[in-house]
Amino acid sequence: MSPNYDEISRKAVRYIEDNYNKYIDLLGSLVEYKTVAAWGGDDMARCADYLASILRERGFKTQIKSGGGHPVVLAEVGSGSKSVLIYNHYDVQPPDPVELWESDPFKLSKRGDYLFARGVADNKGNIAARIGAIDAIIDSIDKLDLKIKFFIEGEEEIGSPTLERVIQDNREWIRSDGGIWETGYIRRDDRLGISLGFKGMLYIEIILKGASRDVHSGNAPLVPNPVWRMVRLLSLLKDEHGRIYVPGFYDDIDPEFVRAGEELVKKMDTAELEEMMKDLGLKSFVGGVSGYEALRKLHLEPSLNVSGLYSGYTGKGSKTIVPSIAGAKIDIRPVPGQDPEKILSNLKKYLKENGFEDAQIVVHSMYRSGYTKPGEAIVRATVNAAIKAYGKEPSVSPLSGGSGPMYYFTNIAGTPMSGAGVGYYGSKAHAPNENIRVRDFVNGMKHFALTLIEFSALARK
Amino acid sequence: MSPNYDEISRKAVRYIEDNYNKYIDLLGSLVEYKTVAAWGGDDMARCADYLASILRERGFKTQIKSGGGHPVVLAEVGSGSKSVLIYNHYDVQPPDPVELWESDPFKLSKRGDYLFARGVADNKGNIAARIGAIDAIIDSIDKLDLKIKFFIEGEEEIGSPTLERVIQDNREWIRSDGGIWETGYIRRDDRLGISLGFKGMLYIEIILKGASRDVHSGNAPLVPNPVWRMVRLLSLLKDEHGRIYVPGFYDDIDPEFVRAGEELVKKMDTAELEEMMKDLGLKSFVGGVSGYEALRKLHLEPSLNVSGLYSGYTGKGSKTIVPSIAGAKIDIRPVPGQDPEKILSNLKKYLKENGFEDAQIVVHSMYRSGYTKPGEAIVRATVNAAIKAYGKEPSVSPLSGGSGPMYYFTNIAGTPMSGAGVGYYGSKAHAPNENIRVRDFVNGMKHFALTLIEFSALARK
Repeated sequence: MSPNYDEISRKAVRYIEDNYNKYIDLLGSLVEYKTVAAWGGDDMARCADYLASILRERGFKTQIKSGGGHPVVLAEVGSGSKSVLIYNHYDVQPPDPVELWESDPFKLSKRGDYLFARGVADNKGNIAARIGAIDAIIDSIDKLDLKIKFFIEGEEEIGSPTLERVIQDNREWIRSDGGIWETGYIRRDDRLGISLGFKGMLYIEIILKGASRDVHSGNAPLVPNPVWRMVRLLSLLKDEHGRIYVPGFYDDIDPEFVRAGEELVKKMDTAELEEMMKDLGLKSFVGGVSGYEALRKLHLEPSLNVSGLYSGYTGKGSKTIVPSIAGAKIDIRPVPGQDPEKILSNLKKYLKENGFEDAQIVVHSMYRSGYTKPGEAIVRATVNAAIKAYGKEPSVSPLSGGSGPMYYFTNIAGTPMSGAGVGYYGSKAHAPNENIRVRDFVNGMKHFALTLIEFSALARK
Repeated sequence: MSPNYDEISRKAVRYIEDNYNKYIDLLGSLVEYKTVAAWGGDDMARCADYLASILRERGFKTQIKSGGGHPVVLAEVGSGSKSVLIYNHYDVQPPDPVELWESDPFKLSKRGDYLFARGVADNKGNIAARIGAIDAIIDSIDKLDLKIKFFIEGEEEIGSPTLERVIQDNREWIRSDGGIWETGYIRRDDRLGISLGFKGMLYIEIILKGASRDVHSGNAPLVPNPVWRMVRLLSLLKDEHGRIYVPGFYDDIDPEFVRAGEELVKKMDTAELEEMMKDLGLKSFVGGVSGYEALRKLHLEPSLNVSGLYSGYTGKGSKTIVPSIAGAKIDIRPVPGQDPEKILSNLKKYLKENGFEDAQIVVHSMYRSGYTKPGEAIVRATVNAAIKAYGKEPSVSPLSGGSGPMYYFTNIAGTPMSGAGVGYYGSKAHAPNENIRVRDFVNGMKHFALTLIEFSALARK
């Protein structure tokens, strides 16, 4: 007998409306763990244990796994014939620059409809909301014939360097009929933005050395300063107009992906772009692009960005030295078809040919781009649930501007993935004063409960 | 009746040999003041007061002056007809990177013949040694017909931004028959290096802005990153080979100074250059220069150096943002004839012409190069005293590679200046583990006492 989907949905929505504050409190307890993956430290394992314990309270069977890095929480509940995998991460970006925060980044601060703390949008808010959504349907999970699995890692913000091993070791456990990605945002037009894929990541740090130590800059006429070489090195990679000069960089982009992606991009709203420009105080985008062309660049093209640049004295006031080191932290985001290993080897060869055989290249993370086709059941479930939860068609993008290790799930563990979440266009993920709106938190919880119910219904057809 | 110079000298040398540990203790008390001019804070005024009090104990009349910045100590003793001005500074460079120090930078650490702490070489060691030297001759000061004046400022390491006002306001007090500069170093060939001049300083910080805040670098295809413009800006200033491209930069160098300077440089020892190369682990100097050509560059040519470069995330691990700001701290060291005001205005025009009208330029300090001709009595006194104190001819350079506000003293207060001091080639001024050798501290004290005696003798002839 088919379950009464409408009744389960109504009950779930009512539960969420009556109980959402409990999950704001849960979010409050999560943000207090200083789980900055780049820092490491005790809070990583403590937070993983805490998540496992609260999932166990709900009947999940939990395991803590590790690929050599920060622990991963695996948890499953239900014994239905259809499985849904939920991917999240408990790690966060560093709070720097801390002085720009209006409240403690590791303490939930509620101001009006807004909740502030590092991780509320990316990605602890989604963990809390999803636990709330599961509480709202847990009594019906057998009727829905579902098995629900959490996969919560702790290295997403540093590029998931040891994730691949955990995926390889647990491939069968992970493989599911559908999967939910960690994030998703409400756009300015109040539509839920759903991403069907994520760019990959090649995060490297290039270090050039001069003298064996910093020296008084009275010696500058003689002692080589690595800054001047770094300037030339960076000028070889990209120009102000956004063109990337690493040889062969654009060659392998999957043309099938581009054709399908262009169709989705054409349906996206361009009004958001002008808002973004205003919000960021910009007169124009890189290369002067706008409208469809800008969306195309954002959602279909690879990027190469300097996230950090350093040399010598960067404190206040002045210090006069010839620095001995210059470094650049560079994030490259490949799209489907591109292989970050190949990009890295082309880059190394290119630098060598240009006199930088001494450049030290540290790879912080490397993974390919992964994406899911729009016709998959899990995509249709998130789209249908969005119409019910938000009263509007969602905005579906082929590929987020951001990166995520979706490739491991879609291509290695063979699980189609769709994204949704509780953030919004003003969430300032990765920046000071990261925040979400309470209404999005509540709607996101409903959306997620409804997605599971929709997925069950689609599977039964 | 002419005083018995030999007897006064012998007595001074004996006093120093018997009492030098007292002045190491004095140095120990000085380095504990955290007088980092770039930081500011209470220790600046506390250290100035302390210096005034220990000079008062010795019979000096003291005054504390200020040009609006950190206090300046003025002190004088004796009523002779010939005056000697001693220029020093109690401020120091920041201790960064602190983790590379082997002992607390603000605590004197004696290890074997070495004394470690921030400021031991630059320049608190010279203050302590000079006070010791004055104690050694104080009983003879009337016989020597001398008046001795201390001028101890607190902003040398940030380019003496308010020094000019103090000099202008106290020009008559400052004007002296001879002056002693703050520093001087024992070279690798055991000869005392005496500098007859210092390069000037134009320390600027160039800041370029992109978006109004850092944003997630998923937006890199659209949001301009100021790093790429900084790369182009810096490439317009100088190349890896050391050539400076600011228009007109080399035009105004005084040809008279260059001709006289080349004569002195020819007499300098080039062996030190190879040692420096080895010490710093270098394969070659900028532009491949060596020998006379390298000394010429170091002592006669202006420089333009990046002391600090920063943008975005520079902590450990990775963070993925498009930075909103990129900045470069640049020190330019003009030589005699060059006007830093003109260099700055040419630079601004040049940047504007190349599309950088939005570049923000903060001037941290600006002063001209100053130098003294080799025939002056004070120079001859330091040279003669060096032969007696060290048993070797000193090495006289026309212009130190470093900068100092000597111009205010030589050109504005009309006082010829000569330099000497207690540091050595391995002192690591401005770097971690700054240190001096006890033997140089003792010899420097003798040298300074003998310089005053020589100066008195030359004046009487």
